Amino acid sequence: MFGLDEKCSVMGVFNVPEAAKFTYFGLFSLQHRGQEAAGIASSDGEKLHITKGRGLVTQVFDEKKLSLLKGNSAIGHTRYSTAGEDSVLDAQPIFARYDLGQIAVVHNGNLTNARIVRDELIKEGAIFQTFMDTENLIHLIARSKKEHLYDRIIEALGKIQGAYSLIFLSRKKMFAVRDPHGFRPLCMGKLGDGWVVASETCAFDLIGAEYVRDIKPGELVVFEEKKEPKSIQVFEPTPHKCIFEFIYFARPDSYIFGKSVYELRKRMGRELAKEYPIDADIVVPVPDSGVAAALGYSEESKIPYEMGIIRNHYVGRTFIEPTQAIRDLKVKMKLNPIKEVIKNKRVIVIDDSIVRGTTSKKIVNILKEFGAKEVHMRISAPPTIGPCYYGVDTPSKEELIASKMSVEETRKYIGADTLAYLSIDGLLRSVGNDQSYCMACFDGNYPVPNLN
Amino acid sequence: MFGLDEKCSVMGVFNVPEAAKFTYFGLFSLQHRGQEAAGIASSDGEKLHITKGRGLVTQVFDEKKLSLLKGNSAIGHTRYSTAGEDSVLDAQPIFARYDLGQIAVVHNGNLTNARIVRDELIKEGAIFQTFMDTENLIHLIARSKKEHLYDRIIEALGKIQGAYSLIFLSRKKMFAVRDPHGFRPLCMGKLGDGWVVASETCAFDLIGAEYVRDIKPGELVVFEEKKEPKSIQVFEPTPHKCIFEFIYFARPDSYIFGKSVYELRKRMGRELAKEYPIDADIVVPVPDSGVAAALGYSEESKIPYEMGIIRNHYVGRTFIEPTQAIRDLKVKMKLNPIKEVIKNKRVIVIDDSIVRGTTSKKIVNILKEFGAKEVHMRISAPPTIGPCYYGVDTPSKEELIASKMSVEETRKYIGADTLAYLSIDGLLRSVGNDQSYCMACFDGNYPVPNLN
Amino acid sequence: MFGLDEKCSVMGVFNVPEAAKFTYFGLFSLQHRGQEAAGIASSDGEKLHITKGRGLVTQVFDEKKLSLLKGNSAIGHTRYSTAGEDSVLDAQPIFARYDLGQIAVVHNGNLTNARIVRDELIKEGAIFQTFMDTENLIHLIARSKKEHLYDRIIEALGKIQGAYSLIFLSRKKMFAVRDPHGFRPLCMGKLGDGWVVASETCAFDLIGAEYVRDIKPGELVVFEEKKEPKSIQVFEPTPHKCIFEFIYFARPDSYIFGKSVYELRKRMGRELAKEYPIDADIVVPVPDSGVAAALGYSEESKIPYEMGIIRNHYVGRTFIEPTQAIRDLKVKMKLNPIKEVIKNKRVIVIDDSIVRGTTSKKIVNILKEFGAKEVHMRISAPPTIGPCYYGVDTPSKEELIASKMSVEETRKYIGADTLAYLSIDGLLRSVGNDQSYCMACFDGNYPVPNLN
Amino acid sequence: MFGLDEKCSVMGVFNVPEAAKFTYFGLFSLQHRGQEAAGIASSDGEKLHITKGRGLVTQVFDEKKLSLLKGNSAIGHTRYSTAGEDSVLDAQPIFARYDLGQIAVVHNGNLTNARIVRDELIKEGAIFQTFMDTENLIHLIARSKKEHLYDRIIEALGKIQGAYSLIFLSRKKMFAVRDPHGFRPLCMGKLGDGWVVASETCAFDLIGAEYVRDIKPGELVVFEEKKEPKSIQVFEPTPHKCIFEFIYFARPDSYIFGKSVYELRKRMGRELAKEYPIDADIVVPVPDSGVAAALGYSEESKIPYEMGIIRNHYVGRTFIEPTQAIRDLKVKMKLNPIKEVIKNKRVIVIDDSIVRGTTSKKIVNILKEFGAKEVHMRISAPPTIGPCYYGVDTPSKEELIASKMSVEETRKYIGADTLAYLSIDGLLRSVGNDQSYCMACFDGNYPVPNLN
Repeated sequence: MFGLDEKCSVMGVFNVPEAAKFTYFGLFSLQHRGQEAAGIASSDGEKLHITKGRGLVTQVFDEKKLSLLKGNSAIGHTRYSTAGEDSVLDAQPIFARYDLGQIAVVHNGNLTNARIVRDELIKEGAIFQTFMDTENLIHLIARSKKEHLYDRIIEALGKIQGAYSLIFLSRKKMFAVRDPHGFRPLCMGKLGDGWVVASETCAFDLIGAEYVRDIKPGELVVFEEKKEPKSIQVFEPTPHKCIFEFIYFARPDSYIFGKSVYELRKRMGRELAKEYPIDADIVVPVPDSGVAAALGYSEESKIPYEMGIIRNHYVGRTFIEPTQAIRDLKVKMKLNPIKEVIKNKRVIVIDDSIVRGTTSKKIVNILKEFGAKEVHMRISAPPTIGPCYYGVDTPSKEELIASKMSVEETRKYIGADTLAYLSIDGLLRSVGNDQSYCMACFDGNYPVPNLN
Repeated sequence: MFGLDEKCSVMGVFNVPEAAKFTYFGLFSLQHRGQEAAGIASSDGEKLHITKGRGLVTQVFDEKKLSLLKGNSAIGHTRYSTAGEDSVLDAQPIFARYDLGQIAVVHNGNLTNARIVRDELIKEGAIFQTFMDTENLIHLIARSKKEHLYDRIIEALGKIQGAYSLIFLSRKKMFAVRDPHGFRPLCMGKLGDGWVVASETCAFDLIGAEYVRDIKPGELVVFEEKKEPKSIQVFEPTPHKCIFEFIYFARPDSYIFGKSVYELRKRMGRELAKEYPIDADIVVPVPDSGVAAALGYSEESKIPYEMGIIRNHYVGRTFIEPTQAIRDLKVKMKLNPIKEVIKNKRVIVIDDSIVRGTTSKKIVNILKEFGAKEVHMRISAPPTIGPCYYGVDTPSKEELIASKMSVEETRKYIGADTLAYLSIDGLLRSVGNDQSYCMACFDGNYPVPNLN
Repeated sequence: MFGLDEKCSVMGVFNVPEAAKFTYFGLFSLQHRGQEAAGIASSDGEKLHITKGRGLVTQVFDEKKLSLLKGNSAIGHTRYSTAGEDSVLDAQPIFARYDLGQIAVVHNGNLTNARIVRDELIKEGAIFQTFMDTENLIHLIARSKKEHLYDRIIEALGKIQGAYSLIFLSRKKMFAVRDPHGFRPLCMGKLGDGWVVASETCAFDLIGAEYVRDIKPGELVVFEEKKEPKSIQVFEPTPHKCIFEFIYFARPDSYIFGKSVYELRKRMGRELAKEYPIDADIVVPVPDSGVAAALGYSEESKIPYEMGIIRNHYVGRTFIEPTQAIRDLKVKMKLNPIKEVIKNKRVIVIDDSIVRGTTSKKIVNILKEFGAKEVHMRISAPPTIGPCYYGVDTPSKEELIASKMSVEETRKYIGADTLAYLSIDGLLRSVGNDQSYCMACFDGNYPVPNLN
Repeated sequence: MFGLDEKCSVMGVFNVPEAAKFTYFGLFSLQHRGQEAAGIASSDGEKLHITKGRGLVTQVFDEKKLSLLKGNSAIGHTRYSTAGEDSVLDAQPIFARYDLGQIAVVHNGNLTNARIVRDELIKEGAIFQTFMDTENLIHLIARSKKEHLYDRIIEALGKIQGAYSLIFLSRKKMFAVRDPHGFRPLCMGKLGDGWVVASETCAFDLIGAEYVRDIKPGELVVFEEKKEPKSIQVFEPTPHKCIFEFIYFARPDSYIFGKSVYELRKRMGRELAKEYPIDADIVVPVPDSGVAAALGYSEESKIPYEMGIIRNHYVGRTFIEPTQAIRDLKVKMKLNPIKEVIKNKRVIVIDDSIVRGTTSKKIVNILKEFGAKEVHMRISAPPTIGPCYYGVDTPSKEELIASKMSVEETRKYIGADTLAYLSIDGLLRSVGNDQSYCMACFDGNYPVPNLN
């Protein structure tokens, strides 16, 4: 579904020749987690090198730029840029010279006490040159009195709250860490004699790395040459993994939180079919977000699955405004139903969420135009009633249709014959009744208060 | 499957305000039929306007360029450019001033006597400024002694052979014509008070036009203001519609030759399942080309369908060469299997064709790497044994694996446990035993000899 | 002076390894004769190669594109594009396949019977794909019944009128020709074992070629491997060399028509000083166009020369419109006087022409603002009273201030204290009373009627 | 002369509607002081806005970007970027949030104790995100305990040494300051109801501002709404104004240090003629750097001035490498002599400096090739024997030809018949024996030690 966006992906490569190139290809696989900016910092053991810019990974980098990113370790980032006048300034990695030398950091997540920490730092004389939370961290590390970077990182982490999957790069070491709640994923793998860390395992598949395990909530892993990675459980883990990663963000071919995204999505579809069965002719996904859940729904309900809506992948950016309105142009440029499949059918259409409701309304409308006899919308997640403070770019509460309308009101608004969302219990069943997920956007139980 | 490419799409809009904008959006929907160049010519009744360039439709045009393409009629083209040093010169529409005024033309197809006609024209003093067959047509029209464009077009068509779906634009009229074999599709629709013509109906869906019927093989339709379109059956139809349009080129949400592409692909999958059943755990498509056939195979065989391979749609162009080989990088950048789905499974993988065999080999290999117990490749079309002379960019006969190897040899080469292709009879059954298709690339029966 | 533009430059290189590269550098030197489009065609003996595009020479070509332009002979062109919706189509060289093989041509000048010839050709069935006169030539050559290209070129030249300095390239030969009037310059030089032809000798200086002589009015020179260039006087010469080449177009470091541009400009300045002396403190050129004439004026008048107006060469294109008016911004972005030099001085300001008068008015105005006590404008050419039909892009007669206003009226309009133009006699004295120049834009005596 | 580069220009506009646009045009006039990067920060009274990027001013900004730079005050910068992997990070203005709110700063010059200050700041926990000296300043201001920005700026200035012309922008105020030596120029002007500050007065001419006076060495000027600018002499002035600004950097139409650049250059030429007269036929400048001095030399010596070498202003960037060498291509692409002027003449060629000697050698060589009987090189400044630590990008001492060779040796190296440099005394006479200039690059007397 359009309307929610992950803010970032992170990638790290340690002790691998041409580390920046592997980071590049890793980021390429993680492009779905942020398309506005990309950056890589590398270390050649003596000096850090950095390049960042606006655009897709393939637009920011070329052979020449990669060749300047020398060394056997590197970290990278893709970003969904919220806005800002000159967002290149807000691309990551953040690099700094400080008293221990040079450091770079990439961050997926959102600090819930960023403003407080920043105000405190500013009061102490710090200057902030970007609008990224992450800048706090470098300041905390630079101001620490501890002798070793390792200790400073731990001290700094003690002062921040919220969601963070971080990778730090110094001249000789790499550090990967996940907040005690483990909001965002962070996976660790083996590549030749070296190590890789990434937001999702799909990055490993492309570069031929082998998935080893997740960095654990509250764990810091230190990568150092000629040593095995060293694990420190910095914080007692109190896991609240973002369940929306499964529902929407992650690529279906990834493992995150140790589980297959595709399989979990199918299970959500199955649970949805159990909870909200309906007599219909076909199950059709909104591509690509609803595909796996629709397969699950179809399997459970025995109602045939059809790819009844086609997605046009050439979309990119077009700035042409038709002065004579073509109705629903924006949605139609992405999605087009197949009349032969839809016509005279009772259609169950599956999507993963409804954000503002405008797109869903258009999809229902187009399906009816194409001759659907009935349109039953099924959502493979509970109603999204609140914003996320942990690294997802959600609209404000007022814009979320489910925070303002009942399911029946929403049904009327979007024009569907029936509408149903997977229940929170159903969602829990899909993940094996594992209670360690954050569902704040569905149930309003925010594990960490937002102090910003 | 990668390796075959349609050379073009055409689009025409007549008697619609802002015709160029509608043409633009139509071409946007037809982008899959050619990504190398795009162009639009419009008429404001007094004068033709033209813009063409290299790249995607969204790259060639912007608001300003579209605003210069004034008038209520327009024709457009997207092109798969075979090569050439400066292919912008070989973009369409072709525009010319000639004795009756101004004319522009767009062409999907390939003329089989282009060389002979060109040599004849050159002998008579014509000059050829492009490397496009289509230039012949303008010359033939310009040299005709007939008084009316209408008669000249007919005369010119009498001299050319091969595959052509053409749209001509003069200052006051538009002409759409399809060769007597009807190799390439050409659809006609209604938009407000005006008319549209396009290679596929998906172009109509986006702009809100209504599909009326196909231009018939051998038919010329003349569009003129304040008149109904006038149909002339210029040639006795001897239909040989390109069946590969159904198998691969057309968008699944299009109707071509009056039939739903998606539905026919599913039927091919069903026939394949009947002809070559195998005991297995899952049916997995090579996305996106194998999706519909895989759904058909699954329905027929009752073996569950799984989206077990994910396609990365960010690919675009990357010029980064890893100096340390990442194995099968190019295929992996597009396709990635889901381990959870594949592991320990007997997998039936469905694709629409095997061209050189190299990609299929890599797909089988990756599936095995991901733990597939068995890989059974099923192709929803017969073996491609010969090139196409009617507008498809095929490799030479020597490069086509099926022209050199038996099915068993091919199976060994790609490393699959079993391999089977849909038979020609099966393919015919899929299209209701309609004999009016060209299957030359499968059976070597070329309805029109290639004289080039 | 801003307002008049040469339409083109041409360059040819024969029998020199990497001919396209030498052509590139030659065009680089000729960039002042056209900045809108550039192109090069080369021959490797078997096949012509061509690349053309919009922009400066350095923008159209890169190493890769040049490397595709194989062979030991090449011709090139820079163009001042008058307009057109997609001017890339109207870039040169024009390339064509025709009955003798392949040909390319570049053209500096303007055919005065282009419309008539074109209409005739169109009546005979020719099609015109560009809006360039030059296309006529290829048609005439292609339609000739003569056996050899050489004879066909001569036959074609017999049918065209007007101004042309042309270079033809076939697979084995190069032909350079100048119209019988010799309106536009065309120089010939030696480079290693090969030959070069160019609009101006400055192109030879850069690439290290040696100027040999001019191609003569009415002369055709044929370049062929292993032979000395062969000269044919195709037409009786009736020289009317464009005197404006000396006044404005040519680079001061060039020789054209066998004379030093810089020296002639200085002489015009001297004659101007003799004809229109005035008591003043300093002589200041409008840079860069008035520099040489101002030096001559200063030498003759003994009034000190000062570079009292500075030209900003970074101008390029800026599209920023100040919503709050900065007065005379456009002129000020190019030109800025030096207060110390101008203040309280009686200033003689020298330019080479006044076209519409608006820029001159602004220059006078700015000089007064900077404190000039008196501003005496002196123009090193006679008043421009008529358009050019021989290859210069002049405004229409109505826009030429000298066609509407007397010198005194013009003086008032531009606000100068005095204004004087070099007389036609003075101009003639500058060129040694050589009567072989075209002065149509000054005296209205058009040596060839404009039939377009 | 090629080889020395100013690192920056600065521009400020206060209390003028559309301040960013005026800053844009000001920077456009100052483009000669840095072509690698440009940036503007504006204040709308509530918030600062900033955009910066690589390239020329006209490349970095467009209408849309300027429109986002809201407000009535703005500061801007152009930069000659020394290197760096991603120099956009090192573009100015530097912006920061700090305890008093938001601040931006632009800097022309070089801090000689930057390393020491930075190390100290880093020791105290500061982080440095750029490689620009200027970042020190923001840190010092942020860490100051003073209540008002005004006092903090003064405190910070007390800790830095070297060359600085700075403009600070806060939400409500603008501050302009020059180091006590006044190394770099900084001019102040009036524009409507507001004020402007710029490196050179040519920026005022374009935007229609009126030059008022220079910011004095050691002076801080505070601009505040509804108040007259407030001047504070922060430091006792000990002027060491960079004399090279006159010799080379500044535009000849600028006033800097209260004097006309053009006039001073002419005087240097005159002094040079007095000190090193020679019997010759013509005086020729190396354009554009030697023009004014050559005019002075000519006036003094009564030897005629000739524009005997032409500069091609289209140069820009070309990356084409001729594989077959064209001799001295790089110099020839910029400069071309006029044979008619040079041939058989005894030529005095005037330039402003010799850096490495390679270009001078080529110029002498080309003049001889063009037939000069004698070439007498005269340099309108003393030999450059040492690097600059105050904001000029000079080669290292080893690369400066005058630090390794005597004048006679240099003469032999470049191949001139005679060579002479203006003496230090002569240079002093040119500036009226004003002792307040820094001549460190000529005499080795560095007024401030370089501690970096």
